[in-house]
Amino acid sequence: METQASSASSGDDTPTASTASIGDWATCAADPGYRAAVLDLLGALAYGELSAFERLAEDAKLAPGLADKAALARMASAEFQHYQLLHDRLVEVGEDPTQVMNPFVEPLESFHRMTAPSDWLEGLVKAYVGDAIATDFYREVAVRLDDDTRDLMLRVMSDTGHAQFAVDRVRQAIEEDSRVGGRLALWGRRLMGEALSQAQRVVAERDALSNLLVGGAHVQGFDLVEVGKMFNRITEAHTKRMAALGLAS
Amino acid sequence: METQASSASSGDDTPTASTASIGDWATCAADPGYRAAVLDLLGALAYGELSAFERLAEDAKLAPGLADKAALARMASAEFQHYQLLHDRLVEVGEDPTQVMNPFVEPLESFHRMTAPSDWLEGLVKAYVGDAIATDFYREVAVRLDDDTRDLMLRVMSDTGHAQFAVDRVRQAIEEDSRVGGRLALWGRRLMGEALSQAQRVVAERDALSNLLVGGAHVQGFDLVEVGKMFNRITEAHTKRMAALGLAS
Repeated sequence: METQASSASSGDDTPTASTASIGDWATCAADPGYRAAVLDLLGALAYGELSAFERLAEDAKLAPGLADKAALARMASAEFQHYQLLHDRLVEVGEDPTQVMNPFVEPLESFHRMTAPSDWLEGLVKAYVGDAIATDFYREVAVRLDDDTRDLMLRVMSDTGHAQFAVDRVRQAIEEDSRVGGRLALWGRRLMGEALSQAQRVVAERDALSNLLVGGAHVQGFDLVEVGKMFNRITEAHTKRMAALGLAS
Repeated sequence: METQASSASSGDDTPTASTASIGDWATCAADPGYRAAVLDLLGALAYGELSAFERLAEDAKLAPGLADKAALARMASAEFQHYQLLHDRLVEVGEDPTQVMNPFVEPLESFHRMTAPSDWLEGLVKAYVGDAIATDFYREVAVRLDDDTRDLMLRVMSDTGHAQFAVDRVRQAIEEDSRVGGRLALWGRRLMGEALSQAQRVVAERDALSNLLVGGAHVQGFDLVEVGKMFNRITEAHTKRMAALGLAS
């Protein structure tokens, strides 16, 4: 698919995330390539939220006590509210949410199959690391999109309180038994590897999306150099988060 | 435990649900027996909501498509919002929600173990029938309690949209294959039987609760005759609901 990522793009190569407006959704989505790419992003994000709901609800079953169970159920419910925002936007722009999410079901389910947590702590690390990588990625992309999509995505990416909960529980477990740290550090590396490999696969299969991210046509400096830098920033943030958990990445 | 269910009770035997006020929480809860009984009701209800969240999230995994999955996740999330209301009230009256819910974990988990759905349709029927019986019971009790508890319980019992969804799906499945109806009718009877047997067990083990419901001390006509009538009404409503599903009860 031949696309022009944004007719309103300034086309400069500023290396840091820019917040300069490229226009609203109505203006930018007149370009079919831009529209298709943003629909892909919203679809992937929506299914990601629905999937996060399911995973957190699953983790709630493994919770060692009622208070932890309720805390996870609360986070699952927050993820669902985020899904609802995306669902409503897709309907608003005349799309069937199910159709838009469909291409991302298989890659995400593959990721979950490859990284099924074997216990409560692995589940916590997975949710923490996985959500954080996804959040970093979408935030980086969001600031380069039209105003309406950016505002929606930043709202959806708002904190669900999960991070601090996971950090507290994992640090405590490592304090109680330091061997837990080694096992979870390995687990964190495996998660990062699988996440990158599935993300790569999705981008390779979705023309409009890859054109938006790395194509000749770019939005606000989205060229290969910038994408490389973006992945470096995401990897650095991952390293810091693993350290916050008390784990070597 | 010797209790006086309510010092403010009028003590009459009106057979229908009365909405006459017996006072607010502060007045009624001065009686330790009343307070203990209401805490039991709120604890059972709170764990019921948390458990409904888990069960619906589990059913979402069995859903035949993305739209159904999202619909169940939406209902699970609504149940969690209800849990949150009860949690916040328990904290407000100086109680630890975990402590108050604890006595009801085992009976509810027993019920769920005895009635694990083997497929998507059994899950739908269970959620529909189970929620409805619980809702009928709590609504009957709520109108006899202090104003604050009554208002909270009626809010928590508000419709989550589950009923219509389950009715639509089950009726459609029976239309497609009438043998499904026979199997699900048997399933509905088993659910009602298990629900009654667990409810009986809980009431027998909780002195304050049984005093409130059937004890010598009673709130607004809660004597044995009235309790019998209440169970008749709940059973009749169950029969009607099963008919709405296209099932003989």
